[in-house]
Amino acid sequence: MIRLQSYLSGRWQDGEGEGAALRDPSTEEVVARTSTAGLDFGAALSFARERGGPALRALSFAERGAMLSAMSKLLHTERDALIEVSAKSAGTPRGDAKFDIDGAAGTLAYYGSLGKRLGDRRWLAPDEGEQLTRSSRFWGYHIELPLRGVAVHVNAFNFPAWGFAEKAAVALLAGVPVVTKPATATAWLTYECVKRILDAEILPEGALSLVCGGAGDLLMHLRSQDALAFTGSAETGRTLRSLPNVIEHSVRVNVEADSLNSTVVAPGVERGSEVWQLFVRDVAREVTQKSGQKCTATRRVFVPTELLAAAQEDLVEELKRTKVGVPGDEGVRMGPLTTAQQKTDVLAGIRALMDEGAELTFRGEAPEGEGYFVPVSLLTQPNPAQATQVHQLEVFGPVATLMPYEGVEQAIELVARGGGSLLATVYGDDKQALSELILGLAPHSGRVLVGSKKVADQTTPPGMVLPSCVHGGPGRAGGGEELGGLRGLRFYLQRTAVQGDRALLARLLDVPRGD
Amino acid sequence: MIRLQSYLSGRWQDGEGEGAALRDPSTEEVVARTSTAGLDFGAALSFARERGGPALRALSFAERGAMLSAMSKLLHTERDALIEVSAKSAGTPRGDAKFDIDGAAGTLAYYGSLGKRLGDRRWLAPDEGEQLTRSSRFWGYHIELPLRGVAVHVNAFNFPAWGFAEKAAVALLAGVPVVTKPATATAWLTYECVKRILDAEILPEGALSLVCGGAGDLLMHLRSQDALAFTGSAETGRTLRSLPNVIEHSVRVNVEADSLNSTVVAPGVERGSEVWQLFVRDVAREVTQKSGQKCTATRRVFVPTELLAAAQEDLVEELKRTKVGVPGDEGVRMGPLTTAQQKTDVLAGIRALMDEGAELTFRGEAPEGEGYFVPVSLLTQPNPAQATQVHQLEVFGPVATLMPYEGVEQAIELVARGGGSLLATVYGDDKQALSELILGLAPHSGRVLVGSKKVADQTTPPGMVLPSCVHGGPGRAGGGEELGGLRGLRFYLQRTAVQGDRALLARLLDVPRGD
Repeated sequence: MIRLQSYLSGRWQDGEGEGAALRDPSTEEVVARTSTAGLDFGAALSFARERGGPALRALSFAERGAMLSAMSKLLHTERDALIEVSAKSAGTPRGDAKFDIDGAAGTLAYYGSLGKRLGDRRWLAPDEGEQLTRSSRFWGYHIELPLRGVAVHVNAFNFPAWGFAEKAAVALLAGVPVVTKPATATAWLTYECVKRILDAEILPEGALSLVCGGAGDLLMHLRSQDALAFTGSAETGRTLRSLPNVIEHSVRVNVEADSLNSTVVAPGVERGSEVWQLFVRDVAREVTQKSGQKCTATRRVFVPTELLAAAQEDLVEELKRTKVGVPGDEGVRMGPLTTAQQKTDVLAGIRALMDEGAELTFRGEAPEGEGYFVPVSLLTQPNPAQATQVHQLEVFGPVATLMPYEGVEQAIELVARGGGSLLATVYGDDKQALSELILGLAPHSGRVLVGSKKVADQTTPPGMVLPSCVHGGPGRAGGGEELGGLRGLRFYLQRTAVQGDRALLARLLDVPRGD
Repeated sequence: MIRLQSYLSGRWQDGEGEGAALRDPSTEEVVARTSTAGLDFGAALSFARERGGPALRALSFAERGAMLSAMSKLLHTERDALIEVSAKSAGTPRGDAKFDIDGAAGTLAYYGSLGKRLGDRRWLAPDEGEQLTRSSRFWGYHIELPLRGVAVHVNAFNFPAWGFAEKAAVALLAGVPVVTKPATATAWLTYECVKRILDAEILPEGALSLVCGGAGDLLMHLRSQDALAFTGSAETGRTLRSLPNVIEHSVRVNVEADSLNSTVVAPGVERGSEVWQLFVRDVAREVTQKSGQKCTATRRVFVPTELLAAAQEDLVEELKRTKVGVPGDEGVRMGPLTTAQQKTDVLAGIRALMDEGAELTFRGEAPEGEGYFVPVSLLTQPNPAQATQVHQLEVFGPVATLMPYEGVEQAIELVARGGGSLLATVYGDDKQALSELILGLAPHSGRVLVGSKKVADQTTPPGMVLPSCVHGGPGRAGGGEELGGLRGLRFYLQRTAVQGDRALLARLLDVPRGD
C-alpha cells in the first residue's frame, strides 16, 4: 500500500491521521491512503501566486510550450508504469488506461506545439486595433495578459491523467500557476504523473502544486485574480459557483459537468449502410468505454421510429461482444465502476429509468462478488415525449437509452430537454436533415459531431475530446468552455482595452509590424 | 405627473396599487409613478423567447443592424424632448443629459453599422477550421449561434438612456430578444426611449420588452438559454449571481459593477505641461460629470509625492469653476444626485474616508434646502499604503481622493488594492514608466487610457465608454465584459465545435469561400 502526499508550497507534505482509503475497484482492496488534514492551503496558494506566477510570466510562449512538450514526452515514456497504476487504482483495462494517459500526453503535446507557434512573445499579440475618434492618432488596442493569481483545478475521478493534464496545459501555457486537485478515489494516478514531472524539474518552482485528498478550505482562499476550473457533477459545480468568496471576488469559474449527451440518427439512413455501421460501433464504444464513466458518453440515442427495432437488434449484437471483468484477464474490455458509490448510483439510476417506463432491451454479464462490476445495459424508452427522467437523470455507467422520434423537429426538441449538453452526435447523409439538425442542436451543445458517408472510417470517437475543439456545453453541462486551441487560454487572461497614441502604444505593446 | 407602464407580452401593462414615486432630484417633487405589482413576468419572458427570438433569428445581421440604425436616428430626432425628461427625472444639466442620450444614439449607430458590415449572414462566419486527425477530410469548425432564450438587462439609475441602449444594441444584433429593466428612480427616460421605439414599429414583436418598476420575480424565471446583464452596485451583482435558478441552470451573467477607478500621473510629468493640463481637466470632468455618478468616474488619483501640492492647487482651481445648481439655471454645470439615498450615502462615504485620515482639500458650494445637492469634494489621503477605506469604499458622487506615491511599482500596488476596476488612466511621456504602468495595471483593469503629449488634445474623456472597446473589469468591477465591437456579441451566442466532413460542413455552415 502506498501513502500519497500533497505537493504544496514547494515541498511534499503529508496530512494528519489515517486519511482516506483508495481501493482497487476490481478487488475492493485498499491500495493507497492519503490525507490533507492540517495542510495550509492558504499558504500554498500564496506560494503559487508569488513564486510560480512571476516565474511563468517571465517565460515566453515558446519556453512554456517546451515545458509542456517535455511533460508530454515524460508521460509517454512512463506509459507502462502509469497503465499499471491506472489498472490498480481505477480498474481500467489496458485500452481505457491508454485512452486516459495518451489523452494527457496528446493534449500536452498539442499545447506544447501551440506554444512553439506563438513564439517569443510573453502575451498574445494585440489585435490590429482601431481608430477611436476622428483623429487617426488616437487608437484602441486590446491586450490579454495572464491573471496575477493561481489556477485551481478540481478534477473528476474518471480521467486522473487526462483531466489533470488538459487543464494544466492550458493554464501553464497562458502563464498562470496551477494547483491541481484530483478526485481522491483515483488520485494515485495523478500523483504518479505529477511526481514524475516534479522530479524531472521541468517547471519553475511554484508552477505546479498537487492536493491529494480532501479539498478542505482550499477554495475559500480564492480571490479576484484566481481562476477555478472544475470537472464533475452538476451538483458540485453549483456548490462551487455559490461559494461566498467566489461570488464576492468575481472569481472566474469554469464548470464542465456531466450531461445527457445525445446521438441522433437522421432520417434517411439505411440499416447496414456505412453510416449505420458507424453509428452502431460508436454507440457501443461510448456505452462501454471507461465503463460508461465519461462526461461525453452518449446517454440518449434517438432513431427514426421505423428504425427502432433495427437499432435494438444491431446494438445488442454489438454490445454483446464486450467482455466485462478484471483488467488484464483474457479478453476483458470493460472493467468495474470506480467506487462502491458509483455502483449503487448506477443501479438505482437504471431502476429510476425503468420506473418511468423504459424497457430493458439488453443486459450483459458481469462478475459477481468482490469488485464494483455492473453489466452493460441498453434500455428503450418508447415514449420519450412523455418521459422526464431519461432527459434529466444521468446514469454515469455503461447504460444508454434508445428512443424513437418522428421528424427532425421533434428530435431537436427531445435533445433540448436535456437542458444543455457537452455533445450531440448526428449520423446521416441527407443534407437538408443534417443542416436542420446541426443548426438546431448547436445552441444546446458544446460540440456536434457529424458522421456521414465520406468520413465514416475517419471520424474520431464522439466521446474523444480534441484539444483543438472547445470542450464544454451550455446549461446543465455547466456553461463552460475549455481547450479549443487558443480559445482555452482566454479563461486565464484578462482582456484589457488600451487607448492612446497609436505609434506609442504599438511600440510599448509590441504590436506586430504591418499594422 | 405621469403614470409609467411596462411593455410585456406585446402590450402595455400597468401594475396594481399606487406604485413607486419617482422624484425630480432638484425639487424632490413626485413627477411620475410606476408599479409592476401583479404583472406576469414568467409569461413575458416566454413571449419574448417564443415570439421575439425566432423573429430576430430569421433576420440577417444587416437587417438587425438597420433596425439599430433606425433606433439611433429616432433617439437623435427626439433629443430635445428626451433632454427635458432627463432634467426632470434625473436632475441632469443639458451637458449631462446629452452625454447619456448621445451615448445611447452613438452606440446604436455603431452596432447598426457593424450589422451592415456583417451583411447577409444570420450568424457569424465560422473560422477557417482545422484538420483534426491525419485525414484531411475530417475537419473541425466553430460556429456561434444566438442563444434560444431571452436577454434580461438590469440597468443602473445613472444612465437611463445609454445603459438601456448599449445592452440592447448588442443583444439585438446578436439575435436575442431583450427585456430591459431600468432602475426605478430614473425609469421615466428609459420609458420615453422605449415607447418611441415601439411606436415606430422598428422591431419585430417580442424583440423588446420593458419592465418599469420593481423586478418582482422576473429573474426567477431565467433558464439555461437566457442571459442576464447587470450594471450597478457590486453588492446587487453578488445577489444576482447567487440566485438559485441562475446557479442551477448556468444562466450566463455579466456584471458591470462600480469600482475604485484610478488615475496615475507617471513620473517625469511636468506641472503645466500639456499632459499635466490634460490630467487636471480630465480629473475635474470625471469628478463632476453626472455629479460623479458614473461607474467609470475616477475615485483615486495618484501622483508622485513631489507633485502632490501642485496637483492639489491646480485641481482645486479647476474644480472651483463647476457651478452646482438646478439644471437650466444660468451657468449650472452640475446638478443634484439622483436620490435622497444617494445623498445620504455620499455624505456618509466622505465621512468614512476622513475618519481614516483623508483631509478635505476642497469643498465647493451647493444649494441647500430642497433637492439632493451635494458639494464637489476633493480629499487628500497622505498615507495611501496604510489606508484601506479609500481603496475599497466607492463614494458614488462628486468626490475623489488625491494620494502621493513613490515609484511606479508602488503606484501599481496601490491601484491593485482596489481589487479590480473598470478603468485606469495614466498620464505621462516617459516610455519606460508608461510601459511598466500599462502592463502592471492592465491585469487589474478592463481598460487603460494613456494620455500622452501627442494625443493630449485628441483623447476621449476617460470615463467615456466607446462601443469599440470592451467595457467591464475584473474582480470588484464584476468580472464582466460588454461592447468591444464584435466581442460583446459573444455573450449572447453559444459557441459550438462542429466536426465532420470538411466539404459537407463548409456547405452546410456557409463557410466563406477561400478557406
